[in-house]
Amino acid sequence: MTIDRIGVTQRWCDAAIFNGIVFLAGHVAEKTEGRSLGEQTTEVLALLEETLEAAGSDKSRILSVQIFLTDIAKIAEMNEVWDAWVPKGTAPARATVEAKLASPGHDIEITAVAAKKST
Amino acid sequence: MTIDRIGVTQRWCDAAIFNGIVFLAGHVAEKTEGRSLGEQTTEVLALLEETLEAAGSDKSRILSVQIFLTDIAKIAEMNEVWDAWVPKGTAPARATVEAKLASPGHDIEITAVAAKKST
Amino acid sequence: MTIDRIGVTQRWCDAAIFNGIVFLAGHVAEKTEGRSLGEQTTEVLALLEETLEAAGSDKSRILSVQIFLTDIAKIAEMNEVWDAWVPKGTAPARATVEAKLASPGHDIEITAVAAKKST
Repeated sequence: MTIDRIGVTQRWCDAAIFNGIVFLAGHVAEKTEGRSLGEQTTEVLALLEETLEAAGSDKSRILSVQIFLTDIAKIAEMNEVWDAWVPKGTAPARATVEAKLASPGHDIEITAVAAKKST
Repeated sequence: MTIDRIGVTQRWCDAAIFNGIVFLAGHVAEKTEGRSLGEQTTEVLALLEETLEAAGSDKSRILSVQIFLTDIAKIAEMNEVWDAWVPKGTAPARATVEAKLASPGHDIEITAVAAKKST
Repeated sequence: MTIDRIGVTQRWCDAAIFNGIVFLAGHVAEKTEGRSLGEQTTEVLALLEETLEAAGSDKSRILSVQIFLTDIAKIAEMNEVWDAWVPKGTAPARATVEAKLASPGHDIEITAVAAKKST
């Protein structure tokens, strides 16, 4: 069975797809780097959505996410954006922990595993 | 192929099941919040077991776990409970790192991926 | 469907294989514990490669990796080794965050999910 990869560079890919399952890279803010956690969350979720669509999945088919926040005390600010974004009845298995990220302007990083749409 | 979700709220589900694989949310203590790491570990593993059973799997079919401890120096206290809990010969791929968690009363959070039982 | 496990002890296994997907444990340095991050990265990637081969996969078939560094400021030192190690065009979905690890001599831990080779 072949592996499909999206947005592949020498260092990573945005998503790897195998056997109907999509593995997404840790996504971080691009345009909103350094801005509020809420703004970054909005952008990161939009970027995840783009990658999901490119991989033949969508945000209603996410199986699990892992969310890293540089300040876990701000989780409510992230949750507000998250709750509004998740399609009703399709929330994934989720874990959220605090961790320092690679770029000082990034306060949130999200990885995910999703199911491809049936074809 | 359909996705089954257990314990779904607007924010997360306890487990998402697709193509025979079960993705479990980060599980934390409920009744033993604020108690010793050993007590919390015992409860978290019991909760994981409940979710696994509800998802059509069991603790002998875990593929991988990720364990977050707020104080990695206490890993031996967690390992003692863990080692007694894992059915002989079925230990999963495991990674354990330190991370601050969302609630100050939580000292351990465990996520897992498991295989459904054959039907 | 059966689960195959490699290097299983009472606490963990090096890899669990189910339905063509290989789940790898967090790998850390053995011989280079306490040495530079670059040296540890070289060893950890070699160990991952060994486990992948034993599991019927290889480093060109990695779907996702999670990298934990005890000092994220040193990520460039890890990336240099990583970029040279990844076979062109096969880079996996990747997330790298900072986390304290179980042994003070370990500065990097890597987990991965990979696809088995077709048979």
